[in-house]
Amino acid sequence: MIASNDLTREDALDHSAMMHRCLELAAQGAGHTTPNPMVGAVVVKNGQIIGEGFHPQVGQPHAEVFALRAAGAAAKGATLYVNLEPCNHTGRTPPCTEAVLQAGIATVVIGMTDPNPKASGGIQRLRAAGVTVITEVETTACERLNEAFIHRIRHHQPFSILKYAMTLDGKIATDTGHSAWITSPAARTRVHRLRSQCDAIIVGGNTVRQDNPRLTTHGLADHNPLRVVMSRKLQLPAQANLWHTDIAPTLVFTETPRAASSLPESVDVVQLPTLTPQAVVNCLYKRGLSTLLWECGGTLAAAALQHQVIQKVWAFVAPKLIGGAQAPTPIGNMGLMTMPEALDLHHTQLEKIGPDWLIQGYLKAQC
Amino acid sequence: MIASNDLTREDALDHSAMMHRCLELAAQGAGHTTPNPMVGAVVVKNGQIIGEGFHPQVGQPHAEVFALRAAGAAAKGATLYVNLEPCNHTGRTPPCTEAVLQAGIATVVIGMTDPNPKASGGIQRLRAAGVTVITEVETTACERLNEAFIHRIRHHQPFSILKYAMTLDGKIATDTGHSAWITSPAARTRVHRLRSQCDAIIVGGNTVRQDNPRLTTHGLADHNPLRVVMSRKLQLPAQANLWHTDIAPTLVFTETPRAASSLPESVDVVQLPTLTPQAVVNCLYKRGLSTLLWECGGTLAAAALQHQVIQKVWAFVAPKLIGGAQAPTPIGNMGLMTMPEALDLHHTQLEKIGPDWLIQGYLKAQC
Repeated sequence: MIASNDLTREDALDHSAMMHRCLELAAQGAGHTTPNPMVGAVVVKNGQIIGEGFHPQVGQPHAEVFALRAAGAAAKGATLYVNLEPCNHTGRTPPCTEAVLQAGIATVVIGMTDPNPKASGGIQRLRAAGVTVITEVETTACERLNEAFIHRIRHHQPFSILKYAMTLDGKIATDTGHSAWITSPAARTRVHRLRSQCDAIIVGGNTVRQDNPRLTTHGLADHNPLRVVMSRKLQLPAQANLWHTDIAPTLVFTETPRAASSLPESVDVVQLPTLTPQAVVNCLYKRGLSTLLWECGGTLAAAALQHQVIQKVWAFVAPKLIGGAQAPTPIGNMGLMTMPEALDLHHTQLEKIGPDWLIQGYLKAQC
Repeated sequence: MIASNDLTREDALDHSAMMHRCLELAAQGAGHTTPNPMVGAVVVKNGQIIGEGFHPQVGQPHAEVFALRAAGAAAKGATLYVNLEPCNHTGRTPPCTEAVLQAGIATVVIGMTDPNPKASGGIQRLRAAGVTVITEVETTACERLNEAFIHRIRHHQPFSILKYAMTLDGKIATDTGHSAWITSPAARTRVHRLRSQCDAIIVGGNTVRQDNPRLTTHGLADHNPLRVVMSRKLQLPAQANLWHTDIAPTLVFTETPRAASSLPESVDVVQLPTLTPQAVVNCLYKRGLSTLLWECGGTLAAAALQHQVIQKVWAFVAPKLIGGAQAPTPIGNMGLMTMPEALDLHHTQLEKIGPDWLIQGYLKAQC
């Protein structure tokens, strides 16, 4: 969808391809840019890429700066592609619009406008300075990549993903609680990659007691998200993999004074008057987090859904049947008594990963 | 895969296309041919189809006969395509091999050999009479269409499909037992079509008491399978949709004398010493049934799986979350305590039907 200009079909295809290159570059910052968005930029002259860049980490220069630096003096008269409207304000770094103007860029092609009112206005600034600006190129893909950033800006809440893995008969463990493993190594690697793109992983005390997980990316990426445990009574084991892996910090939310526990010093504890998913999400928002991954059991998952803090579901389904009369399922009681009350998932996507399936979907309409 | 002849790539493509036409024709007999297979035949001369036919119903002529009749005298020197080896014995009808020879067919292209020792020998008979026979054309697709027939012949058991519909969090009803509806109208229509291709539908007494289903094809096809209820104590309602729809017969298997029930006369009752899935399947085999569709709840599904009478699973998954602490799931306790004991599904296939997904798979290796 090209909104601002009448383009030939060939131009539109070129723009689309370059924008997807921007998104590839942008994604290299995944897990490191929060609370900033992931942004990639490409400088093109006479059909050739003469500079590329991406925003590598919060506090570092923006994507446009790296791409323009790479292009050097050749950027004069060239076209800049970027998946997000160049910022027009001085934050941790100077405005990108000024860098674009100084480089003599003739045309800027933009995937989506900046939802952040503080940073927006870049398009107007560029046009006022005589630059041709083409907008809304591959906007849906651009919004998808930065859905957590957009949600954080628009709703003043982090973006929460509920992830679970179940058998084709709907169980997340056997009747005796055994759950290793439901999905294939390929699917588990996919989860580790997802973790590396998130800011925090949230589980309940039960998961720590029963599964004793590490909740790391298992060496897949250098970014390991914060591990968050919700435990009302702080009845957590003194020995747990979470406390004894220092690759990522661990934060426990509770209603109980820390002194009542035998947690090691290295674990942060936050005592809340009432431990709810909403209260935890609010705290994590204030700490600047954008993407939360809920890898909890059915009881906490049900509470998080009831509190409407979940925006997206990642459901892995393994082609196996385990059966069970008391076997746990992905989501506990949410107080829904008839089938029409069920929470519908929208914009669902299905992907085969090894022998398993990954079904993704959104609760309510998201970007 | 062409085994018998060296064919050009063009010939092989033609053979494949004609064999798929045979399968299309064959499928028109679905639900009516049991215990016979579904068979379609095409007569081709100079690249043109000059005759088509399929086996419409047990007791009626075979596919080859209809196709040869349609071709008439032009069949002389032509090629006959048929998805199953022409029979070489006199059963309810004379041997097809003789009809092929009388028509003067020059070449016969066959999808799969006949697993029925009584009917086989057709290929040898034709070759001995000087007919060119090409075998194993689209064999996998041919075996898939007649998997129930093959299973019945090889294992002296009907072929059983376990079908269920669940939410993406693994529930077949809410905590209060409400289940209307989990899947979309498109998926439910697909179930009605599946029913029309089966010989019997099996449920337990609980399903009759809780869901009061009709278990018909809802007008989708003129064939409605036998409805089978397994009820140990015969504590079934005197009024139920099953007893009061005469579109298909109903058969109740029980351990209790019929006199103890208030079932209407129209319902057949068979008293068994011990009511097990295996005993029921054996009875239905003896009655000549090939394809059984289990549309039961989790307890009976678990028993059927434990008794190893299920060959295939049809799992519908709806993109919705209902939650539930005691909500029923598709398969109850099968005595499996660790995840590696889970029953793996093989040759899985996934299809999107409206908003829902249909996942099919086989238990153990089937054809």
